[in-house]
Amino acid sequence: MKKLLIVYAFLISIFAIYLFTYYLKDSILNPFDQSDKRLQGDIGETYVMVTFSAGIEYWKSAIKGFEDAATDRNVSVEYRGATQYDSHEQITVLEQVIAKKPAGIAISAINPYELNSTINKAIDAGIPVVLFDSDAPASNANAFLGTNNYSAGVTGAHKIADLLGGKGNVAVITLPNQLNNKERTNGFVETISNDYPNMKVVAIKDGKGDQLQSEKAAIDIIKSYPDIQGIFATEANGGVGIADAAQSLKKDMKIISFDTDKRTLDKIKEGAISASLAQGTWNMGYWSLQFLFQHHHGNSELQADRQSKQSAVIPDNVDTGISIVTKENVEEYYAD
Amino acid sequence: MKKLLIVYAFLISIFAIYLFTYYLKDSILNPFDQSDKRLQGDIGETYVMVTFSAGIEYWKSAIKGFEDAATDRNVSVEYRGATQYDSHEQITVLEQVIAKKPAGIAISAINPYELNSTINKAIDAGIPVVLFDSDAPASNANAFLGTNNYSAGVTGAHKIADLLGGKGNVAVITLPNQLNNKERTNGFVETISNDYPNMKVVAIKDGKGDQLQSEKAAIDIIKSYPDIQGIFATEANGGVGIADAAQSLKKDMKIISFDTDKRTLDKIKEGAISASLAQGTWNMGYWSLQFLFQHHHGNSELQADRQSKQSAVIPDNVDTGISIVTKENVEEYYAD
Repeated sequence: MKKLLIVYAFLISIFAIYLFTYYLKDSILNPFDQSDKRLQGDIGETYVMVTFSAGIEYWKSAIKGFEDAATDRNVSVEYRGATQYDSHEQITVLEQVIAKKPAGIAISAINPYELNSTINKAIDAGIPVVLFDSDAPASNANAFLGTNNYSAGVTGAHKIADLLGGKGNVAVITLPNQLNNKERTNGFVETISNDYPNMKVVAIKDGKGDQLQSEKAAIDIIKSYPDIQGIFATEANGGVGIADAAQSLKKDMKIISFDTDKRTLDKIKEGAISASLAQGTWNMGYWSLQFLFQHHHGNSELQADRQSKQSAVIPDNVDTGISIVTKENVEEYYAD
Repeated sequence: MKKLLIVYAFLISIFAIYLFTYYLKDSILNPFDQSDKRLQGDIGETYVMVTFSAGIEYWKSAIKGFEDAATDRNVSVEYRGATQYDSHEQITVLEQVIAKKPAGIAISAINPYELNSTINKAIDAGIPVVLFDSDAPASNANAFLGTNNYSAGVTGAHKIADLLGGKGNVAVITLPNQLNNKERTNGFVETISNDYPNMKVVAIKDGKGDQLQSEKAAIDIIKSYPDIQGIFATEANGGVGIADAAQSLKKDMKIISFDTDKRTLDKIKEGAISASLAQGTWNMGYWSLQFLFQHHHGNSELQADRQSKQSAVIPDNVDTGISIVTKENVEEYYAD
């Protein structure tokens, strides 16, 4: 009798557990069904970001955006960069990445031509590729996300004209082989020429993306054109180099730079650089991953059943926008 | 004694339930912690899409994209459209939507000017707004997602020139007050004028976005210019109307249309329309919601701690791309 009651007690407890978990399944486990409708990756799904001149502060915010999106989508990311400013090294890195068959690749191209065949090899292997920051427009990559660099140059021209009261000689220190820098230069030069009859771009020099080379180029310009009123740097090392040149020659002029690394922000705070053009670099990284993820999943049959077949095609081009950093708002840019 | 055993049995079963659910919490409920890292909305978070001429097939794919993204993010969507092609009605609808304080609004603007103050009212009330398909560039909206309409017009010009062997008189039937249609017209007209010396745009007429009005406009053109070789329609009703006009007058000419509604696809299949320019409308809806979601969550303090502060700023502009539909690939476009 006693034993029988214990058996009953166990049977009752098992039944109670059954009922309880049944209830639990319906009320608490239901969100699983719902989250199943959402696009989820898995941790073995790896997206790779490939840059050049790896390790420079510039990429930090784009990498952060890429990582934030990976956390959002529950996928893995890897970051690979050519250590030097060397196209052959970037091609080698990209070949190695392709060999591992990742779920997608985001690349910033060191120049607009030399990576085309390697990018196309990835596309042919079924790996989605997006370009960010610096495009390779003739490649078969799926999208480009970056600053509209021509518009950025236009913004730079209006800003320097504003600071100089619309008159004076100005110059540009740039990276002539890199498409984004070329477009910034064109936007700047054409706007000065079209909109400011009392201004002239007297020199365009190659700073090689390097602080010392840019300082040297700026010294050359200041010596050749003693009446120079301002210089536009199309990338951050250039801006710092120009500021150093102006300081060492005690030359008073307006400097418009690009991007928001710590040295640039410090020099804006000191007044050595007048303004800098801040790009939406976090957005480049974040939406690069979201687009690659969408393309990867939009092409799977499972996903095609759930979503429109159009989800396999991602947008062509994203202008991630620009904002102007000056002494007035520089503190906000130290935040990240 | 018997009663005591029953009490024990209940105690044992309660303890068993406790142990079991404790175990369950640890092993099954853990994914909740993980998904907590991901950006999740809640079902009370409502995003609203506002269009004009509601109910036309054109919006179907953009709405599907908006809904797919809402499923992905676990948020709610509402669709509100002015029933007529009437800017006052769209302003009224938008005012009603703003009053409900949704988490974000995606609008296709009926014209580029009249909605500005209402859009700015939403922004001032802290509601993120993106424009899709048809922009209001002077408004304070956070982003525009749509076809680069000038580029689409360029594509249309090259296609019609290709079909006509680079010679002959052509015309455009458009909606002159709508910015997207205006840009498509400009891209088409400037490309014909710059790139095709043996071609000429002899007429640009208002089809009012209506099939019968466009048919009437096309009849006028064909009668005024009997040697007309082709007409470019900057929106879908126009293309169908032009095809009807050509058929009723037994006029043999090339017609390039826009978009991929069923009537257009049927007429491509029949050979009545030569080609149509397909927009990435699903992408417009999908990424509109993703951007609004990002903006909404990027601005919350909770999110700002997790992600970069830059996540509060979304990209400026997305070109959702174009593809050409012809008899050869028309079947693919019936899919959705």
